[in-house]
Amino acid sequence: MERAQDLFQPLLDGHPRALARAISWMENGHPEARNLMALLWPHMGRAVVVGLTGAPGAGKSTLTDQLARSLRAEGQKVGILAVDPTSPFSGGAILGDRIRMNHIADDPGIFIRSMATRGALGGLARATQDAIDLLDAAGYDVVLVETVGVGQDEVDVVSCVQTCIVVLIPGMGDDIQAIKAGIMEVADIFVINKADRDGVEKVEREIEGMKSLSTLRPWDPPVLRTVAAHGQGIQEVLGQIREHGGWLREHGGLAAKAMERAKLRFASLLAEEASRRARARAGSGRVDELIHAIADRHLDPYAAVAAVLDANESSSASGR
Amino acid sequence: MERAQDLFQPLLDGHPRALARAISWMENGHPEARNLMALLWPHMGRAVVVGLTGAPGAGKSTLTDQLARSLRAEGQKVGILAVDPTSPFSGGAILGDRIRMNHIADDPGIFIRSMATRGALGGLARATQDAIDLLDAAGYDVVLVETVGVGQDEVDVVSCVQTCIVVLIPGMGDDIQAIKAGIMEVADIFVINKADRDGVEKVEREIEGMKSLSTLRPWDPPVLRTVAAHGQGIQEVLGQIREHGGWLREHGGLAAKAMERAKLRFASLLAEEASRRARARAGSGRVDELIHAIADRHLDPYAAVAAVLDANESSSASGR
Repeated sequence: MERAQDLFQPLLDGHPRALARAISWMENGHPEARNLMALLWPHMGRAVVVGLTGAPGAGKSTLTDQLARSLRAEGQKVGILAVDPTSPFSGGAILGDRIRMNHIADDPGIFIRSMATRGALGGLARATQDAIDLLDAAGYDVVLVETVGVGQDEVDVVSCVQTCIVVLIPGMGDDIQAIKAGIMEVADIFVINKADRDGVEKVEREIEGMKSLSTLRPWDPPVLRTVAAHGQGIQEVLGQIREHGGWLREHGGLAAKAMERAKLRFASLLAEEASRRARARAGSGRVDELIHAIADRHLDPYAAVAAVLDANESSSASGR
Repeated sequence: MERAQDLFQPLLDGHPRALARAISWMENGHPEARNLMALLWPHMGRAVVVGLTGAPGAGKSTLTDQLARSLRAEGQKVGILAVDPTSPFSGGAILGDRIRMNHIADDPGIFIRSMATRGALGGLARATQDAIDLLDAAGYDVVLVETVGVGQDEVDVVSCVQTCIVVLIPGMGDDIQAIKAGIMEVADIFVINKADRDGVEKVEREIEGMKSLSTLRPWDPPVLRTVAAHGQGIQEVLGQIREHGGWLREHGGLAAKAMERAKLRFASLLAEEASRRARARAGSGRVDELIHAIADRHLDPYAAVAAVLDANESSSASGR
């Protein structure tokens, strides 16, 4: 079996294949994943991590591509993670090809990866955080995390990056309002993309209206206009990302973001690992039996879970 | 403290206040929640559960309202759960008022509840499943579960209901395609809402195209057109829900759905409860210490989680 030590140096040196393999290790729960993370941990903390979220159809991918191009033009290495929680249902890799990214996909200074749930509960947010760390260790200067869906996992992912960009477009429907309100608290920068369409002022007014309702925050999120497909407004977005980074450094905000991220990482890994251990101790036969009992309505789910965890505890206590 | 026995009979009798309180118990992890579920468990399994998901702005809420009205006209009791994972960030209750529902909110045969994460990882899917069960026990004939976001939690929720409706609209943007493909596998019925707009045929062609690519399934999901705001096409949707229910009964599909649901319920409850126990045993002081160590980069998250779980195991083994 390949060991953590074998991937460690190539990954630190920034070899894309080592990086790709390490991300797969994290996704699949490879036995050496944990050791690799321990080795790499002291070599991280340099990368600027930017999250992009917002409604489907808002053009997040195009905006991400344009930001990546501009950063490359400055000589920075850029990692892109596309978080796509719904793709397992169709076998994944919907974004894998990222056809529209062909113009940047051959650039060795850009690493692109689509992150999709492997069916593990809470596994997507955790694996994405791991991938951010690996890109950081591999010397990528900026990591852009783009979400496809708009759900709790995605909000979890982008809420603890350094700078969170919420992308909106003019002329969205009714319940987009709910989503805008919901992600209001996590937005560091608002971008109104496709700003050459009618209704830009209306969206701007709505954002300002919601900003006035929301909890007072020391950083006032700017509202920018872009037409990402034509490269318009990209420099302003980059400028605001830097502005926000500087503000965080001056006001102790980086430490607060690091705490948020540490809490999320601990919680998601704990849920995953505690479940894994409980299942392993109970045995898959016993777990199947309990799940069948729930489906047949002989046992309620709370009782089934208690049966597994109580048994674990008493078998540990008896020195098994 | 109020006990499970106190809520049991009022809830079985369908009292809305008992139902509302019981749902809050499940959301908040009330100590008696588990006992209440055990008492009610034998009294469930009658309700028809229908999930509605799809892109923001597709008019899911309007469609849900119209379905509820039509079902009420037939004399059925209807429960509506609006799953809104992003709302905690703005203090919840974005959908709480559901202004547009005023015309049905006074009807005692309709129970409406907005489900929002309380910050617990994986808690939303679990609490929503609990709420479905409670509505079932309280004698609601149909439960409509409407999702606001489009993320893993939401897909989890709607993928194990009896009938899953995916709502689309004409003229959506680019990456909506990814979402459509992603939820293709869970759709039992496709509804193209706002079908009085241009581009209906294009969406229909896209759906048919993706259906032909997707795994062969014995049930071929129909593609319906509605204009929910004008009540158009609602009877056809109800007809297809019944058609699909009949098909499931004939082909043993209900048992398969029950297994899916049992697996999800077991996994989400196990993650939650195993985490809760591990934290309780470690003590909040120790957990805070570890989270700080992660944030300060003294300890990687895998090592922190292992520290908590290994300590649990050895303290159980030593008979603590």
